Amino acid sequence: MPQYERILITGAAGRLGSELRKALAPLAGRIRLAAREPLGALAAHEEEAVFDLADMDATIAATEGCDAIVHFGGASLESPWQTILDANIRGSYHIYEGARKHGAKRVVYASSVHAIGYHEVEAQIGVDAPVRPDSLYGVSKNFVESLSRLYWDKFGIESVCLRIFSSFPEPADRRMLWSYLSFADCIRLVEASLTAPRVGHTISFGMSDNKVKTVDNRGANHLGFIPQDSSEPFRAAVEARTPVPDPARPSVKYLGGWFCELGHPDDEPKG
Amino acid sequence: MPQYERILITGAAGRLGSELRKALAPLAGRIRLAAREPLGALAAHEEEAVFDLADMDATIAATEGCDAIVHFGGASLESPWQTILDANIRGSYHIYEGARKHGAKRVVYASSVHAIGYHEVEAQIGVDAPVRPDSLYGVSKNFVESLSRLYWDKFGIESVCLRIFSSFPEPADRRMLWSYLSFADCIRLVEASLTAPRVGHTISFGMSDNKVKTVDNRGANHLGFIPQDSSEPFRAAVEARTPVPDPARPSVKYLGGWFCELGHPDDEPKG
Amino acid sequence: MPQYERILITGAAGRLGSELRKALAPLAGRIRLAAREPLGALAAHEEEAVFDLADMDATIAATEGCDAIVHFGGASLESPWQTILDANIRGSYHIYEGARKHGAKRVVYASSVHAIGYHEVEAQIGVDAPVRPDSLYGVSKNFVESLSRLYWDKFGIESVCLRIFSSFPEPADRRMLWSYLSFADCIRLVEASLTAPRVGHTISFGMSDNKVKTVDNRGANHLGFIPQDSSEPFRAAVEARTPVPDPARPSVKYLGGWFCELGHPDDEPKG
Amino acid sequence: MPQYERILITGAAGRLGSELRKALAPLAGRIRLAAREPLGALAAHEEEAVFDLADMDATIAATEGCDAIVHFGGASLESPWQTILDANIRGSYHIYEGARKHGAKRVVYASSVHAIGYHEVEAQIGVDAPVRPDSLYGVSKNFVESLSRLYWDKFGIESVCLRIFSSFPEPADRRMLWSYLSFADCIRLVEASLTAPRVGHTISFGMSDNKVKTVDNRGANHLGFIPQDSSEPFRAAVEARTPVPDPARPSVKYLGGWFCELGHPDDEPKG
Amino acid sequence: MPQYERILITGAAGRLGSELRKALAPLAGRIRLAAREPLGALAAHEEEAVFDLADMDATIAATEGCDAIVHFGGASLESPWQTILDANIRGSYHIYEGARKHGAKRVVYASSVHAIGYHEVEAQIGVDAPVRPDSLYGVSKNFVESLSRLYWDKFGIESVCLRIFSSFPEPADRRMLWSYLSFADCIRLVEASLTAPRVGHTISFGMSDNKVKTVDNRGANHLGFIPQDSSEPFRAAVEARTPVPDPARPSVKYLGGWFCELGHPDDEPKG
Amino acid sequence: MPQYERILITGAAGRLGSELRKALAPLAGRIRLAAREPLGALAAHEEEAVFDLADMDATIAATEGCDAIVHFGGASLESPWQTILDANIRGSYHIYEGARKHGAKRVVYASSVHAIGYHEVEAQIGVDAPVRPDSLYGVSKNFVESLSRLYWDKFGIESVCLRIFSSFPEPADRRMLWSYLSFADCIRLVEASLTAPRVGHTISFGMSDNKVKTVDNRGANHLGFIPQDSSEPFRAAVEARTPVPDPARPSVKYLGGWFCELGHPDDEPKG
Repeated sequence: MPQYERILITGAAGRLGSELRKALAPLAGRIRLAAREPLGALAAHEEEAVFDLADMDATIAATEGCDAIVHFGGASLESPWQTILDANIRGSYHIYEGARKHGAKRVVYASSVHAIGYHEVEAQIGVDAPVRPDSLYGVSKNFVESLSRLYWDKFGIESVCLRIFSSFPEPADRRMLWSYLSFADCIRLVEASLTAPRVGHTISFGMSDNKVKTVDNRGANHLGFIPQDSSEPFRAAVEARTPVPDPARPSVKYLGGWFCELGHPDDEPKG
Repeated sequence: MPQYERILITGAAGRLGSELRKALAPLAGRIRLAAREPLGALAAHEEEAVFDLADMDATIAATEGCDAIVHFGGASLESPWQTILDANIRGSYHIYEGARKHGAKRVVYASSVHAIGYHEVEAQIGVDAPVRPDSLYGVSKNFVESLSRLYWDKFGIESVCLRIFSSFPEPADRRMLWSYLSFADCIRLVEASLTAPRVGHTISFGMSDNKVKTVDNRGANHLGFIPQDSSEPFRAAVEARTPVPDPARPSVKYLGGWFCELGHPDDEPKG
Repeated sequence: MPQYERILITGAAGRLGSELRKALAPLAGRIRLAAREPLGALAAHEEEAVFDLADMDATIAATEGCDAIVHFGGASLESPWQTILDANIRGSYHIYEGARKHGAKRVVYASSVHAIGYHEVEAQIGVDAPVRPDSLYGVSKNFVESLSRLYWDKFGIESVCLRIFSSFPEPADRRMLWSYLSFADCIRLVEASLTAPRVGHTISFGMSDNKVKTVDNRGANHLGFIPQDSSEPFRAAVEARTPVPDPARPSVKYLGGWFCELGHPDDEPKG
Repeated sequence: MPQYERILITGAAGRLGSELRKALAPLAGRIRLAAREPLGALAAHEEEAVFDLADMDATIAATEGCDAIVHFGGASLESPWQTILDANIRGSYHIYEGARKHGAKRVVYASSVHAIGYHEVEAQIGVDAPVRPDSLYGVSKNFVESLSRLYWDKFGIESVCLRIFSSFPEPADRRMLWSYLSFADCIRLVEASLTAPRVGHTISFGMSDNKVKTVDNRGANHLGFIPQDSSEPFRAAVEARTPVPDPARPSVKYLGGWFCELGHPDDEPKG
Repeated sequence: MPQYERILITGAAGRLGSELRKALAPLAGRIRLAAREPLGALAAHEEEAVFDLADMDATIAATEGCDAIVHFGGASLESPWQTILDANIRGSYHIYEGARKHGAKRVVYASSVHAIGYHEVEAQIGVDAPVRPDSLYGVSKNFVESLSRLYWDKFGIESVCLRIFSSFPEPADRRMLWSYLSFADCIRLVEASLTAPRVGHTISFGMSDNKVKTVDNRGANHLGFIPQDSSEPFRAAVEARTPVPDPARPSVKYLGGWFCELGHPDDEPKG
Repeated sequence: MPQYERILITGAAGRLGSELRKALAPLAGRIRLAAREPLGALAAHEEEAVFDLADMDATIAATEGCDAIVHFGGASLESPWQTILDANIRGSYHIYEGARKHGAKRVVYASSVHAIGYHEVEAQIGVDAPVRPDSLYGVSKNFVESLSRLYWDKFGIESVCLRIFSSFPEPADRRMLWSYLSFADCIRLVEASLTAPRVGHTISFGMSDNKVKTVDNRGANHLGFIPQDSSEPFRAAVEARTPVPDPARPSVKYLGGWFCELGHPDDEPKG
């Protein structure tokens, strides 16, 4: 018997969401897939909820009947303030309100390395380190980390905030040789977050078992996440096609990588 | 010669803002007072800016020519989400954008005990402890603490986030016997924050030198704030008129006091 | 109106107990004085309970009607095992059982420096440091610190464990120039422990405001204890009559002083 | 040549003791097995000592000639105070006195998770965390941890206190999926404790290499214990026959499990 | 009776040494003053030793008969490598060899803020923080801190390493408003270091009780140093004659001040 | 394409240097081998620099054209002060000056366990622990750790200081069963130090994956060093030929082993 009756996955059409859609099926009787556009063909155990996270009523309605929420929706990159505000801040508030109103037990949230992107690579921070966002995107991740803490302490809804580093099909540059989180490991991390016996409010980093390790994830060991993959198989190819970067550059110095070299998103030309 | 050319004080009509208006005059050539309604008579060194923090353009405009901002405006209590969003989240973003666009050097922000209100009284947390907000209000304080960290790390604007405990004319209940921050000490704290040689991004608790101490403020010792007042002169009167509370109640157990016993603000009857 | 209805003071005939007997009167309607022998004349607000702590029934009976207990009874020095067992281990268990059965809210317990006596003077330990007892006496103090922790976590009885250093009329040797706790400060510490708004389970060191400070008591700041006395007035006399001790001796090296140079109490000749 | 001349194993008839009896033979010339009843047939390298730990003279006599003691005897569950007192507190004192009088070099003691059972699962405590017993049984474990610290600091007898989690033939419930210590790993842990080059006074957690990890055992890495087993092979069966527990229950929230939901053992009906 | 028979003061002709010469007289029967040139008239309790610290034999000879050494000699500013090597590294080795060969009990060494000068002002480091020297001068201070640690651990000679911040007649610039150590407080600090009952190997910061505090000296509380002076009386004058510095400058950002803006001393033109 | 143009290896004729000479070839176009005597036949990619580290000009000249330096030269054991001074202190200063003048990007330095040799085995220190050298040799290692920190903070030259424990062909005694660093792992550690994307100033312990672990190297996880070897294959032979040592001996108690039992090297008879 699966652990949950119905899991809502937001961002189900996204890079990670579409992986999770496939992988989480055994954990729930039904999977509800949330996206801004219809997803096309659904499996028998799947159902669809089409709405915009900025729409409070629609978002809350979509959480009905779900005892777990895997919240991977919203903007996934640095974006103009209005986008961050609507998709990530307001949208996540709507999700937590849905969880509260409809009795979800646990939320797994896609936070990000960018929540602590301005810590130095060699600082070896743990999950308790003070926040140091590297972008408005990172600030929105801190917002949800704070909001979910409130919903645990006051309303008893458990949350796991996953500070995902770089979850891509394969490492695209030298930084990803340490920040890489394989899709398979990402799925393991979400599964662990959904099935751990007790999470309360837990923050976890999300990286594969790469050789170079830049953070200390012991504070989340009760999740039971043990990465199985590594960036090593990709090393030779990545090093062959990319130059050695200057260690003094912000994108090498700080955990957040190139986000630390971005300007303000509202300064971008709007042409 | 005063240290600043022009200080903007938001929330200038408020309980603390009106105290600061008087006290900060020696630190700047001019004081600009921001409020939602005209303030009436102004002194020679004062000028007025009437606008709503939710209005981005007006808020940014009001920061022009100010090399320091004392941001005490916005909702000062737990409030419905829309109020928190407009006045505290969006409003503070507008202030920081103003600081960035018009070159303010330093912002002093009225954060709150409610940013860490769910920590236990006997935990003796320091300023680096993970956030544990006790309300949507507290979540909005965490948002600005995160945002201001970004504006320091990326844009070089210094900030001091003051986690003010209970700044009232005198302690109103037994909890305030330890959480009390006299107006005079509050002013000392803002002055110290404005004049300390370097603050980078500093979080400081704000309490007077009360006997019972529930947090450890050493992490902010470089501000040079040394409280001069105490709740002791008020103790006898407070104890005479209030019963001994149950130490097991959330309002006694946690730093945030009665905020920890509030329900969700959007559940309040609207009738 | 006093905070407590009736405070039980154990060890009421002892050095500190007789000081507390006088000082705690304002905090309770009645003071019950526990001792092994009758105490003689009693004041109007006082009552007497004569029993041995090793007698479970008598001890439990003596706690009836007491909403607070100041437990200073038992052996106050290194002693043979059987004495430690009866007076300190079994006796304190009886006290806590009395508190549980008769609904006491808070216990203030005379723990001791000897609970952590084998930590080095220059280690500057806090109240959270692992225990390092220097004697069977110290082991019995650890026992009660552990027992009282259980009675808080499981049965909701608050406790303050006071690790008293050297509470004597005046410093008797050079070590007491740093370990001295004046009677007046000892009373302040017990009063603070009884009246602090919430203590949960708190461990506090007990020393006056002496110049040389060998431990860090910040973890107990929520008690509101602020020592007012110092060993300085006694320094000249003490230094005149005592030689400079060798810093390599255990009695100088470790917090516990001469207890660290004692052998095993059961090895003492019995003749 | 084996490392020890003679190892005394107390609790030799118990669940773990009978495993150790078989496994420790290579480490000593002779194994002395202590139990309350005769054990039946003995191997050539074995000898028997039948006595009750509450009997001081008999216990001390049984330690003669032993250069190491593996102290697994006494009550192994929450029990009435008199049992805890006699079997665990007094009994262990007798063991340490035997060690002192007869010159044992090292004691390996079966402490328990219940010594720190009221710490939260997600707190990820280390071996240095303050004690938080969940039972009188746990308090007795703290007593021996304190006593053994004294016997190291003052009398030079090394001890390893093993905070064993759940050592059973296989995991019996969902909690044991993280708290499981296989018999083979338990033996590895005792062997490591006996053979590590230096232990001084070491506290170690005892768990197999289960996926979900709830404590941080790095402080005991000098023992050289590397668990080889895991609860994973038992997971499917355990999950099939047990429901998902409520994470808010004390038995899920705290390390000590169902001990945290027990009442006081002296309140049990005696009929 | 004074605590020491004879104290050797090196650097006796220097700014601080000449203050100490006057102040330490009560602590010893005789004061031996070490300098590179004769000092002129001596008091009855004084004696003189004229030598260069780079001269091993002369330095060792000068320590004969001294049971305490106050080592304030050597280069007191950033200097070319050869000077640092001879006066500070080799010279201090000679002093410690003298202490070892002639049985001195305790050495008080003038280390410096420049031993940790590259830590940030807002980091609030303690005395245990890793070293971050800001100059070859600072490296030489780290060398002696390390050397003196060896001489304590291996040879039993106690040392106090005083990381003096800015000890001048009065604060000369805005940084000194927080780094100021009055001469009187400097003397109190050396006296405390000489008379504390046990110091083992202690590192202490040296600052007066200035408002802005940039480091945490609790780790040295067992010295019994309580500063009595403050930079506040000098604030108005200093602020009147100096501009507000840019908080982004290394000399404001880091504890070491302008040393952090110096180039390499061997690059200085020699013409 | 190799990462470096030319790596200088000092101590190239030594035990570890000759291993590195073979292993590092793939990382650079050319390898320059520094030694005090000619090395004999060179490979095509090798070049030789014969000089004494105490010779500043020669040492600096030898660094020309090298963008990385692997500094394993100098005295490798406790030695008389003059040797330590010339070979380790002055010699390393010359190396860093060469790096600064000729633009080397990164230095990998052979520090040693003896830099922290007086920490206790069971203290489980991390790389940030305060220094506690066990010899003049260890003091010289602390000197270079401090010097290299300065050259990073002020001059931007990255360094990795490797605190190598016992790098020998195989474990020679029981201590090496935990302190062993195989040659292959030593090479892995140097390779990782040369190729990690950013090291700033990193201190790392160097041990193989032995069972007994006495330090915590997490602070250096960003190097990407994962040891592959272990002392276990050598255990039986070592234990067969060596007795069990007394855990109270300094050579067993402290990380530094037998260095902690050495006297002062300048006291050795010279005859």
